[in-house]
Amino acid sequence: MALGTAESAVAARTRIRAGRHAGPTSGLAPGFAQANLVVLAADEALDFLRFCVRNPRSCPLLEVTDIGSPHPVALAADADLRTDLPRYRVFRDGELVDEPTDVTRYWREDLVGFLLGCSFTFEWALAAAGLPLAHQAQGVNVPMYLTSRRCVPAGPFAGPLVVSMRPFAPEDIPRAAAVAARFPAMHGAPVHIGDPAALGIADLSAPDFGDPVRIGPGEVPVFWACGVTPQAVALESRPGLAIFHAPGHMFITDRAHVEFDCQEQAL
Amino acid sequence: MALGTAESAVAARTRIRAGRHAGPTSGLAPGFAQANLVVLAADEALDFLRFCVRNPRSCPLLEVTDIGSPHPVALAADADLRTDLPRYRVFRDGELVDEPTDVTRYWREDLVGFLLGCSFTFEWALAAAGLPLAHQAQGVNVPMYLTSRRCVPAGPFAGPLVVSMRPFAPEDIPRAAAVAARFPAMHGAPVHIGDPAALGIADLSAPDFGDPVRIGPGEVPVFWACGVTPQAVALESRPGLAIFHAPGHMFITDRAHVEFDCQEQAL
Repeated sequence: MALGTAESAVAARTRIRAGRHAGPTSGLAPGFAQANLVVLAADEALDFLRFCVRNPRSCPLLEVTDIGSPHPVALAADADLRTDLPRYRVFRDGELVDEPTDVTRYWREDLVGFLLGCSFTFEWALAAAGLPLAHQAQGVNVPMYLTSRRCVPAGPFAGPLVVSMRPFAPEDIPRAAAVAARFPAMHGAPVHIGDPAALGIADLSAPDFGDPVRIGPGEVPVFWACGVTPQAVALESRPGLAIFHAPGHMFITDRAHVEFDCQEQAL
Repeated sequence: MALGTAESAVAARTRIRAGRHAGPTSGLAPGFAQANLVVLAADEALDFLRFCVRNPRSCPLLEVTDIGSPHPVALAADADLRTDLPRYRVFRDGELVDEPTDVTRYWREDLVGFLLGCSFTFEWALAAAGLPLAHQAQGVNVPMYLTSRRCVPAGPFAGPLVVSMRPFAPEDIPRAAAVAARFPAMHGAPVHIGDPAALGIADLSAPDFGDPVRIGPGEVPVFWACGVTPQAVALESRPGLAIFHAPGHMFITDRAHVEFDCQEQAL
């Protein structure tokens, strides 16, 4: 279902581009999908694309720009990936060198932008289904963990699966899994339910990224493949230049969450 | 859900590799997914991948091989794309030059194999849901049509969407659409229901590929994005060398149909 208008998404990107919003994008342009950004040089693009195709749960591909173009024609044709995210992280040879609000000065004619699915969409669907999220209720970032599960490698790109964790009451888990599964381009169904040790996670209270979340009595941890995976993997290969969105500072698309519901695909 | 064994898929590929089966693959290795094959040179691979990401309904990417490798590591690690399909079509500069049962002599160190989703999987799910397919009942190939709808282009790759058509009684259409939608990697939900003219199709009885199918009284034509699209588009750019499966002579994977059901994703 294509919406006739994406005014709030355009408005949010316009504010960001003008430097009037430099914070996280959570809550901006409600109803519109957001995306993870990875920018690499064209000579690494084929291997990175191959990596994403082989690891669709953690790296669901939404868009790949033309070489040198910062315009994501399918997700938001008038957007500019150099200016329309509130904050970026720039790495040279795997080392963080800058966290600017604009990467125009880093852009080159050989760069390719990749936009990957983001958990905000299935979180929106979970909330809409009456399944509240503990980290939101507690006002913290979702906890994320490096796991002992390896991604399928491709060329220089290899590394561990990173997961996010949301606790649910056992009786809510089948529905939570079924709702998230309708969004395969946004990480889809959980990758594991119940046992952190099975993923090589020693201590749920010490996430590798994000914040710890309190797990209520009787609640069970549910793990999803996480969009931090492609960042971790891209950096492990120490590319000459790599640009990502800063954590939580995502790209806002013109596509409604519901457009990524595979049960609501456009006719 | 990963099955413990893919014996019947391995057995079918072994028979094909040995030259003991050179016909269509429909009905072989029941329960296992099959895939469309496209082989192009590495210097066209990035643009073709970008095309597939921009047109996921017609070109759902299941696997991309390493440059020069004929082994689809994710779908069937022991398979060889040069020998394990019963028949191929080889094109030079957009012209058909050979229809061999083995493409070992055409393989080069710069070739990349792409495996794309195939309608057999959602057809299996439709049949399992008690929704019989007219073309199967009539013993013919599914009818396919060039449409007036253009794919989103990428580099030299551009062209029309090709659709397949299956008629259903109106009361069965919501369930047929919902069942197929669970398989986004296998073309997913229909792209159009009802009006051939809306897709620029003048005469349903004259398909561009496949066979005409009789539409029963009161039945409505339902159109799905079709895996012939990437072949048509790849040829339109007249690549120096392109290799495809021959129509109906697909690649048999080690992955069960059910593994592509987004409601049954592996935990």
